[in-house]
Amino acid sequence: MRPVRQSIRNVTFSVREISERAARMDDVVRFDIGQPDLPTPPAVKEQIPERVRDDHITYTSLWGIPALRETIAGFVDRDIGAEHVMATTGGMGALYCILDALLDPGSEVLANDPSWAPYTMIAAATPGRMRRVPYFNRNGVNAEGVRDTITDDTKVMIINTPENPTGRVYAKEEVRELVDIAVEHDLYIIGDEVYNQILYDGEHVSPAEFAPNRTFTVNSLSKNFAMTGWRLGWLTFPDADMIEEVGKVNRATTACPNYLAQQAALVALNHATDYAEEMVEQYRDRRDRVLDEVDAMGWNCVAPDGAIYAFPDTSRDSWEVAETLLKEAKVSVVPGEPFGSNSDTNIRLCFGSVGVERMREGFERIRAVLT
Amino acid sequence: MRPVRQSIRNVTFSVREISERAARMDDVVRFDIGQPDLPTPPAVKEQIPERVRDDHITYTSLWGIPALRETIAGFVDRDIGAEHVMATTGGMGALYCILDALLDPGSEVLANDPSWAPYTMIAAATPGRMRRVPYFNRNGVNAEGVRDTITDDTKVMIINTPENPTGRVYAKEEVRELVDIAVEHDLYIIGDEVYNQILYDGEHVSPAEFAPNRTFTVNSLSKNFAMTGWRLGWLTFPDADMIEEVGKVNRATTACPNYLAQQAALVALNHATDYAEEMVEQYRDRRDRVLDEVDAMGWNCVAPDGAIYAFPDTSRDSWEVAETLLKEAKVSVVPGEPFGSNSDTNIRLCFGSVGVERMREGFERIRAVLT
Repeated sequence: MRPVRQSIRNVTFSVREISERAARMDDVVRFDIGQPDLPTPPAVKEQIPERVRDDHITYTSLWGIPALRETIAGFVDRDIGAEHVMATTGGMGALYCILDALLDPGSEVLANDPSWAPYTMIAAATPGRMRRVPYFNRNGVNAEGVRDTITDDTKVMIINTPENPTGRVYAKEEVRELVDIAVEHDLYIIGDEVYNQILYDGEHVSPAEFAPNRTFTVNSLSKNFAMTGWRLGWLTFPDADMIEEVGKVNRATTACPNYLAQQAALVALNHATDYAEEMVEQYRDRRDRVLDEVDAMGWNCVAPDGAIYAFPDTSRDSWEVAETLLKEAKVSVVPGEPFGSNSDTNIRLCFGSVGVERMREGFERIRAVLT
Repeated sequence: MRPVRQSIRNVTFSVREISERAARMDDVVRFDIGQPDLPTPPAVKEQIPERVRDDHITYTSLWGIPALRETIAGFVDRDIGAEHVMATTGGMGALYCILDALLDPGSEVLANDPSWAPYTMIAAATPGRMRRVPYFNRNGVNAEGVRDTITDDTKVMIINTPENPTGRVYAKEEVRELVDIAVEHDLYIIGDEVYNQILYDGEHVSPAEFAPNRTFTVNSLSKNFAMTGWRLGWLTFPDADMIEEVGKVNRATTACPNYLAQQAALVALNHATDYAEEMVEQYRDRRDRVLDEVDAMGWNCVAPDGAIYAFPDTSRDSWEVAETLLKEAKVSVVPGEPFGSNSDTNIRLCFGSVGVERMREGFERIRAVLT
């Protein structure tokens, strides 16, 4: 039989293997899982069971049910209406719809180096491709480097703040500077803001603030509401015609988002808006603890001001570290190499699913093996 | 701003407009909605509410939870294991994953003329494209026509039985003949079997019977279990490495299927397997009634042996008919033109959501306007 498409074959699933092996083992300290361990918000647990008993759980509009679009439009706190909102199958679905609609064959989406590994897979599944460039250097925004990387093929710039895997919260001036570069080169911008309510320090700034007319904003229930399994996200854009184009991909890939997940989003956005605050209260300790532990290991690590990750530099090959830790210490971490060209000695530690006590145990095991 | 990708712009959403207008009007007889009106299977309504109260509704494996993959492997009644199954976001998600992984830039998927209109949109969202050719003529399979349409760019053949929009159930010899052509030209085959349990006459034959090693089989909860809004489908293929490649697209577009929908699929496939039989019992009357009514209109129509559609030829422009019926008769139908090059005087009537009494009312209105 003929082979599958080249760009699909080219992307690897390597990170997943660590997680799948970890899942099959007993008693692993799971720093690899990128999701919060808070329970489903109580209001959702209370109100959704009766929706399951609805006689007709049907297709919805592919844009999402009207009440949800209204609610999201209000929630994002910018001057947009329901017609500028599309509900999607997770933030992943939102990112995919935007990139698949925008990227011509051979055209590129720009992301920070390092950035979330699956961006590569998302871009590979479109006719376009991803390119990474360090958005920052010692002096702040790496404006020259970013400008030098942009070509006529570059069509989209992703700004992910708070950032996965670093936990970096981009400062207002940094966002503005990146947006300026995007405007100069007529790029679309994606504000990937799925961690925007999980902040320990600093303030979340959206690129849409500076370039509303070229910025897609992506968010979801997954992280801010600890509702990963519901697969419900959304995108906003000020031009309804553009939403219409991007909607074709939503239709082609999924028909429409899951009905119950949309109902759950309505409940969460109306009755659980302080949930991320509760999370931050609990996670601040974890964040401090992971920094202390990483420091004690002698690993260099920028303090995460948001999200649920630390991305320390172990000064050793990241795949070897991940392999050793899983096999010898029963600790699972994500190797940094797939996140960027300068991250092959980093590892990503997610504290979203590891409490303080368990974290202490995890680092005891790490020390026993690596020091 | 630069335009969206050409192939995305080229596909139209025209059919949707009729449905959206119909939804905003009162008292429309809705022959346009392509879904069954049976309630959610009782076992699902009973067992899923407690799953909503699970504390952790998390990401699952992108292939689906292991118990569901096992169950599906048993359900499809072919010699495959769980590792040959992937759960997806609806049958739509399954179709998209297969085509996006297989279609190289410029390569083609072949479908019958007429066939389900969204195939065009699905193909357009991949780097490839769709081509239609009539699979049948007066003498049976249009073997010469199909062979003449296949080029080096053709990579996949879709066989959709029972067929949307015609309700045609392909005979065993017809399936075999089409499969033979696919084998001759080294094409992959997709068996789109989402209506395979909704049969009034004849027997469902899967192309996987004749070419198991090149056939993806697609199915879902949507039609056979009247569970459209859950967005849960699946694909099977005998080669686990190929599932792995196709899985990259599942990951890129959705991360994984909705957790609750997977739980619901487990319940449905274990406790509601006779649900389609109940549906067929109720729908047989509707099918007979729609044929009588269509006949009384003097419209030519092949009797649907399966699925939930009739596709009569009105001998008038299908868009004009659809417009007139919506505006003047408050009856919504889908124009045939987007389904194929020889269908521009057909209309699609779905009896999945229109009972016998309501159907009588609908045709009274149609007669008042069109005769």
